[in-house]
Amino acid sequence: MRVLMIGSGGVGDAAARIASERDFFERWVVADYDVTRAERTVSAVTARRPGETRFVASQVDASSAEAVEALAREHGATHVFNAVDPKFTMSIFHGAKASGADYLDMAMSLSQRHPEQPYAVTGVKLGDEQFAVAGEWEADGRLALVGIGVEPGLSDVFARYAADHLFSEIDELGTRDGANLVVHDELGNEIFAPSFSMWTTIEECLNPPVVWEKDRGWFTTAPFSEPEVFDFPEGIGPVECVNVEHEEVLLMPRWVDAKRVTFKYGLGDEFIGILKVLRTLGLDRTEPITVKGVRVSPRDVVAAALPDPATIGPRMTGKTCAGLFVTGTGKDGRPRRTYLYHVVDNARTMADYDAQCVVWQTAVNPVVALELLAQGTWKGAGVLGPEAFDAVPFLDLLAAPKPEGYGSPWGIDER
Amino acid sequence: MRVLMIGSGGVGDAAARIASERDFFERWVVADYDVTRAERTVSAVTARRPGETRFVASQVDASSAEAVEALAREHGATHVFNAVDPKFTMSIFHGAKASGADYLDMAMSLSQRHPEQPYAVTGVKLGDEQFAVAGEWEADGRLALVGIGVEPGLSDVFARYAADHLFSEIDELGTRDGANLVVHDELGNEIFAPSFSMWTTIEECLNPPVVWEKDRGWFTTAPFSEPEVFDFPEGIGPVECVNVEHEEVLLMPRWVDAKRVTFKYGLGDEFIGILKVLRTLGLDRTEPITVKGVRVSPRDVVAAALPDPATIGPRMTGKTCAGLFVTGTGKDGRPRRTYLYHVVDNARTMADYDAQCVVWQTAVNPVVALELLAQGTWKGAGVLGPEAFDAVPFLDLLAAPKPEGYGSPWGIDER
Repeated sequence: MRVLMIGSGGVGDAAARIASERDFFERWVVADYDVTRAERTVSAVTARRPGETRFVASQVDASSAEAVEALAREHGATHVFNAVDPKFTMSIFHGAKASGADYLDMAMSLSQRHPEQPYAVTGVKLGDEQFAVAGEWEADGRLALVGIGVEPGLSDVFARYAADHLFSEIDELGTRDGANLVVHDELGNEIFAPSFSMWTTIEECLNPPVVWEKDRGWFTTAPFSEPEVFDFPEGIGPVECVNVEHEEVLLMPRWVDAKRVTFKYGLGDEFIGILKVLRTLGLDRTEPITVKGVRVSPRDVVAAALPDPATIGPRMTGKTCAGLFVTGTGKDGRPRRTYLYHVVDNARTMADYDAQCVVWQTAVNPVVALELLAQGTWKGAGVLGPEAFDAVPFLDLLAAPKPEGYGSPWGIDER
Repeated sequence: MRVLMIGSGGVGDAAARIASERDFFERWVVADYDVTRAERTVSAVTARRPGETRFVASQVDASSAEAVEALAREHGATHVFNAVDPKFTMSIFHGAKASGADYLDMAMSLSQRHPEQPYAVTGVKLGDEQFAVAGEWEADGRLALVGIGVEPGLSDVFARYAADHLFSEIDELGTRDGANLVVHDELGNEIFAPSFSMWTTIEECLNPPVVWEKDRGWFTTAPFSEPEVFDFPEGIGPVECVNVEHEEVLLMPRWVDAKRVTFKYGLGDEFIGILKVLRTLGLDRTEPITVKGVRVSPRDVVAAALPDPATIGPRMTGKTCAGLFVTGTGKDGRPRRTYLYHVVDNARTMADYDAQCVVWQTAVNPVVALELLAQGTWKGAGVLGPEAFDAVPFLDLLAAPKPEGYGSPWGIDER
């Protein structure tokens, strides 16, 4: 396997660090628009293991399908792994296809709200542009494995696991994400520093949240709708969660039978207030405006003004939890309410990988998936979500102690 | 009198419209960094009165004292009137001095917080840079009339009036500013659109508020301190006001005897929440950051993303009130609590001047002052605030019906 990874931000850097402990590939190209970032990642992973020569750095313009194709061909990439902001999804997706490589991403092509009824009816949905050409990928016997981070990704693997092994009938597949992370400045004062891309967080939280119901299909609601206090395990405790637009709702119903699919994110009051203000001020907008003679996108400015999520790990404490709350009827015919989850402690990922927990938790899943594809345990053709594959080998490889597995256990909480 | 006005934003444009009805000057140069804005103002005022030839447009870089000096000399300016953002105050102030003209502004040189105790002790105060060279202006027999908008400006005139005519002893001179303005979008939805420069609002609201007390001098507090619901007249009603940094607190104690001087602004909950979020996200910062290869100041982006305050008048309804709440002992020896105020209705200023009420209310005061200086009714040398001059002719000229006066009455509310 020869991997071309596009993007060496927090997640890309952590994915390279995780992959450097594994033997399933012979080449891992780290490409970034800013080649110094790619070089920094390559230096870091090379230093982790004596004799490591599989990683190389390269420059790439992710907005150009031609540039992605050329780089994939140059390195004989068998798999293009997209690890940048979702606004570049389609150029990388098309570039991979043109080069003859298979493709993986952690965030699907972006949505466009319905022009007249944005908070009721879907417009262009997440992933629609990718699924539109699924037939071409399938006809060519090629695989695009979409949404294989943690959420979407591990959450979708949980959905398949629940359907295959825990439930005879599913009422709701409800992804629930929460954390108790806190970041401090140099003086020890608590500061606001999102643990994930602010650009993406604004996108998913301010877009109309999408919900799926069996008798209704996909529909949208107002941002921050259906607030719900969800109790997260392993000491995180209760966090207020609200509907946000997320890939799971677009992926799960395609392969898993359920009556309802939702995604709720544990934003908390402060973050919700901040997002509402950004919307009020028009600072969530992505179209450039003119500021003292230069053209700049307000959302890019918001992201740039905050600490880089990849750099806050050393000043962060706490745990993050990704999981799927499944309700319905168990295999025994009795009502069942089960939370399948994966908790990561920032102290652990910092110690082991020098990566903060949220980017590490996102990054580990595509590496596990690549290893399963390299083994031939997972195989397929078309544009497929993680729930299209058998969940058991994925969950086993993730949880198994090192060096056999990735040493990152998941849990089941019956409620 | 030959006036060089620097800045043709909302306030500069309104000042030119107001001045065009008066006969006290022979030349009014409208200068702006963007000459098309200056030309737009000149076209508008020329169209207001047949045969009007006193206004001319020019380009100027307000950040260059040399450019201001050269333009003032070119037009033989007797008075340089600064109507731009306060960050350009010192270059215009020095340029006017070098050219031999007198000077007026509506916002003084900026403060710099105390490095160790920003919320207790003053650092460099508003106007300090200007007062530092007051001796030179006085020795040359030249006048810099600072802070002659509405607040500071009319509020300071009220202070002098209260001391001369209403009170024998003053406990507190408390400027209180509030409004009930609402802005709608094209579809009739209420939108967030500040009626005044967002750059300046951020500056004055997020800087440590300054308070003066006779036995303590100037000191600072935390932003949004001492919230107080103040009941504004003429139907505006109660508005929550908080301490903000403002020139009155630096000006009044220099000329008017009082025990305490404060400034509270009726921001309201939503605006306070927005300002706190801007601080949390670092979007109040003025130093440029790098965003996708361009350098830009976050605060400039926030201002540019909002509607231009000069353009929202047609979609705005309501009234704005500027005033001074004075407490102490009346001339009759009995306790007295008096609010001196000036209310402007947006419907009125739009109809008469095509200017929204907040910029109109700011703009009328320096025009009245210029007329008093042209008459010789007001005269002086040095760096002087409005309270250094007799208040009565100012208040009479402001309130007298047109064409003798400016037809904008003020009120007294005994409490």
